[in-house]
Amino acid sequence: MPGMPMAIGQPMPGAVPNMPYGAYSGYSAYSGTYSAAADPMWTYFSTIAGQDGKVDAEELQRCLLQSGISGTYSSFTLETCRVMISMLDRDYTGKMGFNEFKELWAALSAWKQNFMMIDRDRSGTVELHELTQVIAAMGYRLSPQTLTAIVKRYSKNGRIFFDDYVACCVKLRALTDFFRRRDNMQQGVVNFVYDDFLQCIMAI
Amino acid sequence: MPGMPMAIGQPMPGAVPNMPYGAYSGYSAYSGTYSAAADPMWTYFSTIAGQDGKVDAEELQRCLLQSGISGTYSSFTLETCRVMISMLDRDYTGKMGFNEFKELWAALSAWKQNFMMIDRDRSGTVELHELTQVIAAMGYRLSPQTLTAIVKRYSKNGRIFFDDYVACCVKLRALTDFFRRRDNMQQGVVNFVYDDFLQCIMAI
Repeated sequence: MPGMPMAIGQPMPGAVPNMPYGAYSGYSAYSGTYSAAADPMWTYFSTIAGQDGKVDAEELQRCLLQSGISGTYSSFTLETCRVMISMLDRDYTGKMGFNEFKELWAALSAWKQNFMMIDRDRSGTVELHELTQVIAAMGYRLSPQTLTAIVKRYSKNGRIFFDDYVACCVKLRALTDFFRRRDNMQQGVVNFVYDDFLQCIMAI
Repeated sequence: MPGMPMAIGQPMPGAVPNMPYGAYSGYSAYSGTYSAAADPMWTYFSTIAGQDGKVDAEELQRCLLQSGISGTYSSFTLETCRVMISMLDRDYTGKMGFNEFKELWAALSAWKQNFMMIDRDRSGTVELHELTQVIAAMGYRLSPQTLTAIVKRYSKNGRIFFDDYVACCVKLRALTDFFRRRDNMQQGVVNFVYDDFLQCIMAI
């Protein structure tokens, strides 16, 4: 990523504090005395969410499409929306409320900004080594082998598309959050029981 | 699943031996003195695979489409094909050789047979509780909560489509294999290091 202002110690948007493994703390946008009704986003969210005030993966896909967050990039696939839901679905309902939607929005905005920094010609794709550097710069402490394996998994014909990049970011954050919640000593090692392991990982 | 011949103790196609957690042993079809050149599948596999004798996710998608294994069901998405690759990608190349392709084929055939047993009207979808029963009958020892969470994750409007069902089966098998390889005592509990955990799970 020649020329990118991303020296060591200089955080990127969405960067995380130094921990045994990089780890996003949940974005808690709009906490405190926040009023949903006064938020312009609330209008279209509530229209799609309907009476229960929550969206499932199909509804989230429509929400994000209408919001225009993808900009000139292709819109999100249903699979990516499902992973977005599961990233924040702490009560396993398979749905997302407005506060979680705002949390997702903040993360998506930061990730999009990172993507646009490397996709300078707005081709909609970036190179594998560029994504490797972005993930490392986000604060995830991963071996070069793991970074390479991850980036390869989300590539198509040697390039990374925006939707796949976001799916990758969402999974990285969701899996790291999942791991960290169980890593009481914050040492990067966790004991998993098979049933718990499958219940959480299958959703991501 | 009324009327289905699936009493306890009667294995379904693709069923697994009783273990602390259900676990597919790798299908080792065509071991021994098998000759690829004599196999009719080899012709179209090798045409798509080209000189390196391996297919990536996009090529696998074309292979499976041409093979007609989906029958009247919709063909597999690229995302599902990526998970298929990672299920058998023991050397982390992101590609699949012919022997692995045959192994995948055997698993897909069994899973399709299970799906058709419950999708009697060939609508292309099955109900959530039916899939719950199928997964349990395959030999996976999971809590009712986990089974419910898994099935909900792969549903669309309260139904399970064939592609999502296969994606679910592939992930279940891949994650169980991954877990079992690290569960030396076969007790259903594993100690994971963060980097190893992400390297493997991100690919699935």
